[in-house]
Amino acid sequence: MTNDRTEVDGLTIGILGGTGDQGRGLAYRFARAGLRVVVGSRSGERGQASAAEIAKLASADGRSASSRAAVFGDVIGGTNADACQAADLVIVAVPWDGHAETVASLRSNLIGKIVVDCVNPLGFDAKGPFALRVPEGSAAEQTESLLPESRVCAAFHHVSAVLLADPTVDRVDLDVMVLGDDRDAVATVIALAARIDGMRGVYAGRLRNAAQVEALTANIIAINRRYQAHAGLRITDV
Amino acid sequence: MTNDRTEVDGLTIGILGGTGDQGRGLAYRFARAGLRVVVGSRSGERGQASAAEIAKLASADGRSASSRAAVFGDVIGGTNADACQAADLVIVAVPWDGHAETVASLRSNLIGKIVVDCVNPLGFDAKGPFALRVPEGSAAEQTESLLPESRVCAAFHHVSAVLLADPTVDRVDLDVMVLGDDRDAVATVIALAARIDGMRGVYAGRLRNAAQVEALTANIIAINRRYQAHAGLRITDV
Repeated sequence: MTNDRTEVDGLTIGILGGTGDQGRGLAYRFARAGLRVVVGSRSGERGQASAAEIAKLASADGRSASSRAAVFGDVIGGTNADACQAADLVIVAVPWDGHAETVASLRSNLIGKIVVDCVNPLGFDAKGPFALRVPEGSAAEQTESLLPESRVCAAFHHVSAVLLADPTVDRVDLDVMVLGDDRDAVATVIALAARIDGMRGVYAGRLRNAAQVEALTANIIAINRRYQAHAGLRITDV
Repeated sequence: MTNDRTEVDGLTIGILGGTGDQGRGLAYRFARAGLRVVVGSRSGERGQASAAEIAKLASADGRSASSRAAVFGDVIGGTNADACQAADLVIVAVPWDGHAETVASLRSNLIGKIVVDCVNPLGFDAKGPFALRVPEGSAAEQTESLLPESRVCAAFHHVSAVLLADPTVDRVDLDVMVLGDDRDAVATVIALAARIDGMRGVYAGRLRNAAQVEALTANIIAINRRYQAHAGLRITDV
């Protein structure tokens, strides 16, 4: 498993759907790790507002102002297309509803880039969450089919948005399953996950095995409800 | 989470498919925990042979003969129908190929009993393991549809058969996701998992969310291959 900092140190991370809970939480953690982050939204103004909020979170953590200022990365905001354009690696954190349209509309902006889908196609009814059937198999495979010139991976599905966005939480202690068929892209995403304190990226199979990782979020939600927890996964013996 | 020993102490555990790796490994661990186990197979002779093998494993662990003899539960073998008849709680560990037929044939033997499905419907090709589509949604839901008078749960999907059946392994350190709609049955299965040293049962949702837990075994296998590990899951914050 590579933890080579240099591999991701120079990267600019774009977040599509950066005004949602998951996108905002990841943006905050990456900025906190010293990475440049571009927060995208359908509206450029909302992207900018979200970036300003995230930068504000940086002044709320428990670290001293000087050590914080030394490491907190730039966070800027704009449209989803702005985020794609500026970034080397783009995280898809948009709602499942509209996922295909948003991803398809950004195809030309994402050529050659690493695209990490973290979307969980879930429905909710009176009995709680359940996995939705996706024609392409999974959200990640839908993205792959819509972005044939991009390097598509899947990761960051089970991370609690609440913990990510809480500046008083110093460590997010869990393993992130990273899926993909492009070995170098997978290695970069594993290294990216390791930049968040407490987090570790673990290779967990090809993209064709992404559906169950996405759907497992329904089980994590069930666990959270039963045990009043912010549950995450650790992989043993790795 | 209940760890009440008394709840499972008096139970006899039946294992369908007790000659397979997973079934044999679970049978050994339950016997080692002092429970009575009945190992079933399609052929009564093979069930008996498997029971004899499991009892032999008991003399290979690191404990003293006297402390071992004090706790190792009776292991007997027979047909799958014998195992259903004798047991209070039955674990379905048969191959996916033939799962529906075997389960359907035992319906009358399983009325009113807790039935725990741990079958993973997987295929394998040159690219490795992948999840099979199951008409009922999952192996566990197939069992539920075939056994309307039984109390069906799903659990023990991600447990390494190699570790389970290795008598020199004292602890199997991982969490078992337990799924089901019958809250009392789920509590019993959680208590049963806790009888294996190192193991913990965690409620992880209704049976309709079993498919992804079964399919996740493909990802665990991918992890094992990449990292040369016997990977398992731990749930954080629970």
